[in-house]
Amino acid sequence: MTERNIRLLLEYDGSTFHGWQRQPNLRTVQGALEAALKVVLRVDDVYVKGSGRTDAGVHAWAQVANVRTDSTTPLERIRRGVNALAGEGVRVVTAEEAPEDFDALGSACGKVYGYRILNRPSPSPLLEGRAWWLRFPMDLDVLKTELATLPATADWSAYRASDCGSPDPVKTLRRAELREERDGCHTLVFEGSGFLKQMVRILVGTAIEVGRGRFAPGSMVEIRNGLDRTAAGQTAPAHGLYMERVLY
Amino acid sequence: MTERNIRLLLEYDGSTFHGWQRQPNLRTVQGALEAALKVVLRVDDVYVKGSGRTDAGVHAWAQVANVRTDSTTPLERIRRGVNALAGEGVRVVTAEEAPEDFDALGSACGKVYGYRILNRPSPSPLLEGRAWWLRFPMDLDVLKTELATLPATADWSAYRASDCGSPDPVKTLRRAELREERDGCHTLVFEGSGFLKQMVRILVGTAIEVGRGRFAPGSMVEIRNGLDRTAAGQTAPAHGLYMERVLY
Repeated sequence: MTERNIRLLLEYDGSTFHGWQRQPNLRTVQGALEAALKVVLRVDDVYVKGSGRTDAGVHAWAQVANVRTDSTTPLERIRRGVNALAGEGVRVVTAEEAPEDFDALGSACGKVYGYRILNRPSPSPLLEGRAWWLRFPMDLDVLKTELATLPATADWSAYRASDCGSPDPVKTLRRAELREERDGCHTLVFEGSGFLKQMVRILVGTAIEVGRGRFAPGSMVEIRNGLDRTAAGQTAPAHGLYMERVLY
Repeated sequence: MTERNIRLLLEYDGSTFHGWQRQPNLRTVQGALEAALKVVLRVDDVYVKGSGRTDAGVHAWAQVANVRTDSTTPLERIRRGVNALAGEGVRVVTAEEAPEDFDALGSACGKVYGYRILNRPSPSPLLEGRAWWLRFPMDLDVLKTELATLPATADWSAYRASDCGSPDPVKTLRRAELREERDGCHTLVFEGSGFLKQMVRILVGTAIEVGRGRFAPGSMVEIRNGLDRTAAGQTAPAHGLYMERVLY
């Protein structure tokens, strides 16, 4: 029997999960998908490998995962079956046969994250839990200019969580820009070869300080060069962060 | 004492209300705002006049209303006070002093509505309740071309609810177009001098039939000319509709 390798494109609302990674007694994206797949594929065990683990509360428009199985269940039945059984908050957008050597994590050559902020005095009922509300005035031109200084291949240790276990803090950030969504609502877009734990959220928390004038323009590269996490800003909350795309 | 005229810019999540208009024993946008304003302005009664009544379930990024009052409560306190007291789902984005003759309904010279559709086989966890999910294939180019035939000053009786009480079914539709939001997610944008009851939702329900090939291209103008509501498509569900802007 030939083993199949199935590639899944996934969307999820991070607020309904304790992050990506399977955990005993907690509802996670990986756990919900694996539980549904066991039923759909009629197997005792299955492993869903994601392109990366998203933290609790982080959303995904387009996470990618792969699943290896001997099951002959047709793709369309896998997609529908998982969507019927995985419970609220996560859906398989597409399911495709992938080449044997496709690995959602190992084959990825980059990722795009979007971080949505709402910058105005009043909160937004329609973006509740979907954007970080910043009620103080910010200079968005300054923020935009600061983001443009960031792309580089560099050691990003100043922008990673203290418990980040990555062996290599050198990553290439290819793009960092501001995209306007609507009045007061903007997305900070980051594209890179890979990201350290909480890197995007710490970049956002620091960029905000520049935008509001508490850190001087140019601070972000200086902080990066200093390699000191305590010099950077706060970790922006998870609910503004979206995995937008995985590049292969 | 001079009467003030206060202009409010409002955002709301339609799913938490039984529409705009005040109703006994039901939570409505107007009702929630008036209840909060009575406390904030310290008055026995107050009337919030909207640019138009949205149906139950319809959202607003930017509804406009005005309130006449003798109260001297500062604008900033009105904005914050209403936001603290109106309950979830509605917020005052801005509160401004308006000229005496400003009337949210009467002064409006046009409106922009957006109707969001999700066109793909799987539903979207992140757009749940925020877009109309259409799982069948559609030709978006055909849909776009059909929308472009619509702008006109015409009798729109074929596209109004049977219980629409408007004395004049002649309205000018200035713009009808498709805006891509992301993969599979599109907004049908309509700008006009005014809209009949459920007009946008019936236009959308009919445009969808053209997009999926059940109505021939050109049908929408033909149906309009026929003045017969029963020839048009279904009324699209409320949860995809957003009041995007009121023009003055």
